[in-house]
Amino acid sequence: MQNQTVEVTLGKRSYDILIGSGLVVSAGKEIARRFPGKRVVVVTDENVAALHLGMLTQSLRDSGIDVVPIVVKAGEKSKCFETLEAVTSNILDNRMERGDFVIAFGGGVVGDLAGFAAGIVRRGMNLIQIPTSLLAQVDSSVGGKTGIDTRQGKNLIGVFYQPKLVIADTEILDTLPEREFRAGYAEVAKYGLINQPDFFAWLEKNWKQIFLGGHERVEAIARSCRSKADVVAHDERETGERALLNLGHTFGHALETVTNYDSNRLVHGEGVSIGMVLAYQFSNFLGLCPADVATRVETHLNSVGLPVALQDVPGGVPDAETLMKIISQDKKVEHGSLTFILTRGLGQSFIAKNVPPEKVLTFLKQKLGEK
Amino acid sequence: MQNQTVEVTLGKRSYDILIGSGLVVSAGKEIARRFPGKRVVVVTDENVAALHLGMLTQSLRDSGIDVVPIVVKAGEKSKCFETLEAVTSNILDNRMERGDFVIAFGGGVVGDLAGFAAGIVRRGMNLIQIPTSLLAQVDSSVGGKTGIDTRQGKNLIGVFYQPKLVIADTEILDTLPEREFRAGYAEVAKYGLINQPDFFAWLEKNWKQIFLGGHERVEAIARSCRSKADVVAHDERETGERALLNLGHTFGHALETVTNYDSNRLVHGEGVSIGMVLAYQFSNFLGLCPADVATRVETHLNSVGLPVALQDVPGGVPDAETLMKIISQDKKVEHGSLTFILTRGLGQSFIAKNVPPEKVLTFLKQKLGEK
Ligand SMILES: NC(=O)c1ccc[n+]([C@@H]2O[C@H](COP(=O)([O-])OP(=O)(O)OC[C@H]3O[C@@H](n4cnc5c(N)ncnc54)[C@H](O)[C@@H]3O)[C@@H](O)[C@H]2O)c1
Ligand SMILES: NC(=O)c1ccc[n+]([C@@H]2O[C@H](COP(=O)([O-])OP(=O)(O)OC[C@H]3O[C@@H](n4cnc5c(N)ncnc54)[C@H](O)[C@@H]3O)[C@@H](O)[C@H]2O)c1
Ligand SMILES: [Zn+2]
Ligand SMILES: [Zn+2]
Repeated sequence: MQNQTVEVTLGKRSYDILIGSGLVVSAGKEIARRFPGKRVVVVTDENVAALHLGMLTQSLRDSGIDVVPIVVKAGEKSKCFETLEAVTSNILDNRMERGDFVIAFGGGVVGDLAGFAAGIVRRGMNLIQIPTSLLAQVDSSVGGKTGIDTRQGKNLIGVFYQPKLVIADTEILDTLPEREFRAGYAEVAKYGLINQPDFFAWLEKNWKQIFLGGHERVEAIARSCRSKADVVAHDERETGERALLNLGHTFGHALETVTNYDSNRLVHGEGVSIGMVLAYQFSNFLGLCPADVATRVETHLNSVGLPVALQDVPGGVPDAETLMKIISQDKKVEHGSLTFILTRGLGQSFIAKNVPPEKVLTFLKQKLGEK
Repeated sequence: MQNQTVEVTLGKRSYDILIGSGLVVSAGKEIARRFPGKRVVVVTDENVAALHLGMLTQSLRDSGIDVVPIVVKAGEKSKCFETLEAVTSNILDNRMERGDFVIAFGGGVVGDLAGFAAGIVRRGMNLIQIPTSLLAQVDSSVGGKTGIDTRQGKNLIGVFYQPKLVIADTEILDTLPEREFRAGYAEVAKYGLINQPDFFAWLEKNWKQIFLGGHERVEAIARSCRSKADVVAHDERETGERALLNLGHTFGHALETVTNYDSNRLVHGEGVSIGMVLAYQFSNFLGLCPADVATRVETHLNSVGLPVALQDVPGGVPDAETLMKIISQDKKVEHGSLTFILTRGLGQSFIAKNVPPEKVLTFLKQKLGEK
């Protein structure tokens, strides 16, 4: 199976994303070749440790790399100050230097937490991301956003910190729970829906192979990374165009909020799936996007098994007014007007500032059958 | 009295340092003019709050700026995870946005802590430094190093994060305890001793005016800031030349360690004063620097009332072997050889890698009268 490399172009801080099957086994060699003589801390979570940590540490040690593993609890709760302090303290106890490496080996939670730790220990150690969830491979490991949650909200504390290398082993996804894989797939589809209608059409044809793990999986991940890398290269700190990556996320975050970020009810990608369908439908409601395009998006996400409607949220959602209040409190609100990612057709999304809140409310009422 | 402006040149992230008497009173106007429509959090410590917070908040409010004050305990202990979390949480509770400002209003402790908080809330809010100690005005507020301490050591967790503006009000130093002023003066003298013999000679003539607060104080601070700004512009992340700023700091840190960072015994600038004299004497010991130059440095620092010898450390220091062990554990040690800032004459310092530890030991034994 063909491996692929995607470069994230950021001047002196440019880095490669390696994508392919079995790359964890060869990670030691790759890292020893690129960064000789460095020590390594591997941060991972309990689930990934149980399944794959041995494989990674053996690969590193076989290449003569000194490895210290740090295992945190699985789940979003580990993205907190307490765990951050424990991880950084552990790194310092092991006398890691600025030039040594932190490897974030896990899903987006580990990536965000370990990436943040790497960004602040000795004002910045070297960082390698080895994402093990589909979401982490196509989204969170690329682009340099790191951080933790606080009681005020998600990802409110963190830094922009770019890795020196990303290794996406597509085979490691075979052990990912199917629901997590599907949730990650929503973010893959997102890249098509933002600005690549051809990629979306290709996904409609090939999604089953992607789930099964054929070379289509490598292709889909590489293409997703390339999309994200392009956006990041143009707007590293999200002052403009990078906001397009939030397609589906305004509605999605609202749904995560109403389900209290309870992953038994809704995981992030599921919220994004519903959110993207709503974004297309809302664009149609505003007279911007043909109805059949919105239907096509809904149909595809539905066939891969993702939720696509407010009614699909287990336990239900509150009324339109309440949803609206939550959306308005979201960070993308400025001076009373809303910023949304809308679309004029398949893969023709754009940043819409000044969306009138009343329109959103009327649309939501319609979707919920209120009047 | 003449105000001065020093620019720190860092491309798009360049910023001004304003230096002059009474600048806190006009800070509101200056900030409102440069950054219209922003909200502000002022982080300060109890001592500075008691003396000067009212003046600053009034100046800001008079210019229509919404201000939230956050007061932390005075002293190095506030540079910790717990206080960092409390400060960031307070900022978030007050719904500050990425574009809003954190003002660090205090000595180096407040600057490092609040600068770090600004660097991580929402992955980076805007930052203004209003340093109120001499050390903070000539050193810590310039250059973007921020951070906290951990049980493993000082400043081990932090980020490089540049402010948008620095305001050094030279008059505010009138309330600074004289011992703190003297300690800061050691860092002023350091710039002369690194690479500006003419500045050192000027200090020998004018130091009394600097302590008294004449226009010489503005001049000395501006010249110090310019020196640091130059170095930072060339080497923002301390990969090379910036290490020159560590003149006197290897010996100095060792002395801070043996006195357990107990400020009753030794404050940072006092350690640096002794360290700089030792660096000049050690350079002479190695046959690099004339003896009369080392004596001249010692004489000047002694006349301003700074400690200049190991014997000046209250409570005494351990033997040469113990000091040597501490120096070797310092971060500037790599693969068994030491990096020191040495000098070939007044203001002719350079980075010396591969300094043989035996030489340092012999030198220290000589200084301590051991054989
Ligand atoms: N930094 C960014 O740009 C960015 C972007 C999107 C999302 N995120 C963050 O990512 C996080 C979500 O990431 P996630 O969905 O990967 O969650 P996650 O890290 O919690 O992983 C999901 C679950 O899958 C398990 N897992 C991971 N890899 C596995 C494997 N190969 N085999 C078996 N189990 C495996 C994990 O242990 C966990 O239980 C959120 O915190 C979100 O805020 C960050
Ligand atoms: N970031 C950097 O590049 C850098 C460089 C050098 C030092 N530092 C850090 O700076 C810190 C030391 O700074 P410092 O010496 O300013 O210590 P500090 O902040 O503790 O201030 C010293 C004392 O003076 C008081 N004070 C400050 N301004 C005053 C005023 N105008 N009037 C009356 N009292 C006042 C403070 O409350 C404190 O008690 C250390 O933590 C050190 O690590 C950082
Ligand atoms: Zn997402
Ligand atoms: Zn210093």
